[in-house]
Amino acid sequence: MSITFNRDNLKGFIVKKDWDKIVPELKKAHQALEKKKGLFKKSLGWLHLPSQIPDSFLEELQKLAREIQDHSEALLTIGIGGSYLGIRAAMDFLTDDHKLPVYYTGHHLSSDDLYRVLENLKEKRVTVTVISKSGTTTEPVLAFRVVKQFLKERYSQQQLKGRIICITDQKRGALRQIAEKEGYRTFPIPDDVGGRFSVLTSAGLVPLAIAGVDIQGFIEGARKAESEYTVMDVDQNSAYQYAASRYLLYKKKKGIEVLSIFYPNLFYLGEWWKQLFAESEGKDGQGVFPSSLVFTTDLHSLGQFLQQGTRNIFETFLLIDKLQRPITIPRQEEDFDGFNCVADKDLDFVNKKAYEATAMAHFEGGVPNMTIQLCQADALHLGHLFYFFEKAVAVSGCLLGINPFDQPGVEAYKKKMLRLLGKS
Amino acid sequence: MSITFNRDNLKGFIVKKDWDKIVPELKKAHQALEKKKGLFKKSLGWLHLPSQIPDSFLEELQKLAREIQDHSEALLTIGIGGSYLGIRAAMDFLTDDHKLPVYYTGHHLSSDDLYRVLENLKEKRVTVTVISKSGTTTEPVLAFRVVKQFLKERYSQQQLKGRIICITDQKRGALRQIAEKEGYRTFPIPDDVGGRFSVLTSAGLVPLAIAGVDIQGFIEGARKAESEYTVMDVDQNSAYQYAASRYLLYKKKKGIEVLSIFYPNLFYLGEWWKQLFAESEGKDGQGVFPSSLVFTTDLHSLGQFLQQGTRNIFETFLLIDKLQRPITIPRQEEDFDGFNCVADKDLDFVNKKAYEATAMAHFEGGVPNMTIQLCQADALHLGHLFYFFEKAVAVSGCLLGINPFDQPGVEAYKKKMLRLLGKS
Repeated sequence: MSITFNRDNLKGFIVKKDWDKIVPELKKAHQALEKKKGLFKKSLGWLHLPSQIPDSFLEELQKLAREIQDHSEALLTIGIGGSYLGIRAAMDFLTDDHKLPVYYTGHHLSSDDLYRVLENLKEKRVTVTVISKSGTTTEPVLAFRVVKQFLKERYSQQQLKGRIICITDQKRGALRQIAEKEGYRTFPIPDDVGGRFSVLTSAGLVPLAIAGVDIQGFIEGARKAESEYTVMDVDQNSAYQYAASRYLLYKKKKGIEVLSIFYPNLFYLGEWWKQLFAESEGKDGQGVFPSSLVFTTDLHSLGQFLQQGTRNIFETFLLIDKLQRPITIPRQEEDFDGFNCVADKDLDFVNKKAYEATAMAHFEGGVPNMTIQLCQADALHLGHLFYFFEKAVAVSGCLLGINPFDQPGVEAYKKKMLRLLGKS
Repeated sequence: MSITFNRDNLKGFIVKKDWDKIVPELKKAHQALEKKKGLFKKSLGWLHLPSQIPDSFLEELQKLAREIQDHSEALLTIGIGGSYLGIRAAMDFLTDDHKLPVYYTGHHLSSDDLYRVLENLKEKRVTVTVISKSGTTTEPVLAFRVVKQFLKERYSQQQLKGRIICITDQKRGALRQIAEKEGYRTFPIPDDVGGRFSVLTSAGLVPLAIAGVDIQGFIEGARKAESEYTVMDVDQNSAYQYAASRYLLYKKKKGIEVLSIFYPNLFYLGEWWKQLFAESEGKDGQGVFPSSLVFTTDLHSLGQFLQQGTRNIFETFLLIDKLQRPITIPRQEEDFDGFNCVADKDLDFVNKKAYEATAMAHFEGGVPNMTIQLCQADALHLGHLFYFFEKAVAVSGCLLGINPFDQPGVEAYKKKMLRLLGKS
């Protein structure tokens, strides 16, 4: 098991002097986190979470999962932001492991989309997870109202108690009140873990377990990462190297980071990553603008811009060594297209060459780049990768001198919207 | 039928003086396009395409579509870039209109993904469209090899002639050779229409017709747009207003444009738009970096950054007046979540308020924004919208002083990759 991090293609963009200057800053950030200094005190529940999750809790979730898999044909999960993207990223990343198909809602306000999801579920026995710390976030709250009405037409109040699971604040909030009043099962989201860091809490683990994901391996990977990225020595700590590289590139006017992923089913990993970095760093008029691409698809879309457009971009590639499914390229009698040169090879061989070529071409074109490489796409590596990014963004936020754990700007549109809706 | 364009929220960011200066430049761009000047001569096939498509051609395609719908349960379409994104954008935009489910491949090099697509098609009678002008683009070529092998295990060579359709260059190229040798039906992609402008040619129309899209309405909308956006008067021409606004914002250091869409099924419209703008403008070290978001989902992801992060962003909203499917928000006896204020209203009412609140909050936070609003989400409006953006990017490229119709940078990684693959 391993995740490797390569920054050879920063050569010339970041020099030794930059690096020497940043190491003391990294040490300060490390201390601030480990000693839970200042503003951060109440937001660091995620930092040593993996090692604190009891195995007995994972076993309890697996037992619950078996019970639900027995009486359900689908899982519908309601949530937005940190209560949505991490789950969906994991489900798609581990797409062959599912025991139940998963549907999503509560992450938008599109009546067309919600209508279609319910149409798909009409004939299915369904279990629902509702995930919201406060229980007052507009999107999941309204979706839950609609979904509950849909379920009530199909199940008795008693049956609903076995089919609705609320994941919410331990003590407070509207969803907690509803669950207690109506008798739904609940799981708590810890107070000191923000939404975008919550995929390793019940907010992620409950739906993932129900869908059939190997949550034991998932947490095992996060534990390994926690131990690996708590080491202060920058040469040993690739999360710190990634954080520092990003910061240094930002200071050199590279204001856009592109996460370039070579597999369509990792699209939502990119979405999760964007929330994590955008919401943690984008404040006080600062922050690297995060954008994620799926290659080689988007080489035929953003590729021209990356090669020759405005030179304010750096790139992080995400690669997987071993894929799950082989596709052998057939040889053709008449080689009209000229690709018999790769006949009998796996399609992934070509994908890897596309990566090598792109990393080099973009570097030469003025886009410094880094590569994160996973050994394989299993739950273990995913848990590791989630934690890698969480640790990196915490440190990177400290380097920027902002609080990476708040999101004060999100209130601006919400306040206006609730006023327009006449909500008190 | 209408598309409206609102730029009230540019106030203070673009002033009258800017506008007065840009009008003569717009006129020059208009002339360069209409008179097919210089470099552009051979790339303007799209400009008056809608009015030149004979209705008899559309009828021919509809006849073909009925024939295929009778003998097929799925359409698999192979293509990348301009031979993929426009089609997928249209299919998802018009998601309730399909007569055949559509599968996509040839737009990546992921063996896992291609394997899963073929697994889904194993038990289905399928028709395949292969779209590639040159017939030598790596991704669709390799996918076509694999798909052809898959089909040959199921159908005789004679049957394949009714199930494979090649959309390619009129005279040249590997796909043309294969089609002629093996006897597949073909449709031509005109020489003077680049990939990213090709959704209104056979490259888009053939698969769209087969899937059951109203191509007559689609082209009708594009014809209306062609006539509307050929008017030189800027006050009358919203495509020119959009192009000029983007250019002026770019010159004022707003280097990132975010297209914010309020409906999940318009995601691929954003992907199509990104290729159109990134590939047309991103050259000579210039260009606005395009990013697309789906709201309100991404307000819980990039929202913080848009509100308070680095102030180098402008935003374009995309709205639809009337949705297709109603979802009424249920009233609840005990109003724990406080949302009885919107009980009995449609979910889309809340979505519209979210838009109003966001446009205002982002404007106040330093993000100038514009809004494109469609009357409804049908083929007519989609054809109109595609043409709107095509005309806008052509003019916007002219303002930047680059050739909006080439993509010289795309070759850099391709050359390296083909060398690594040992292709002559």
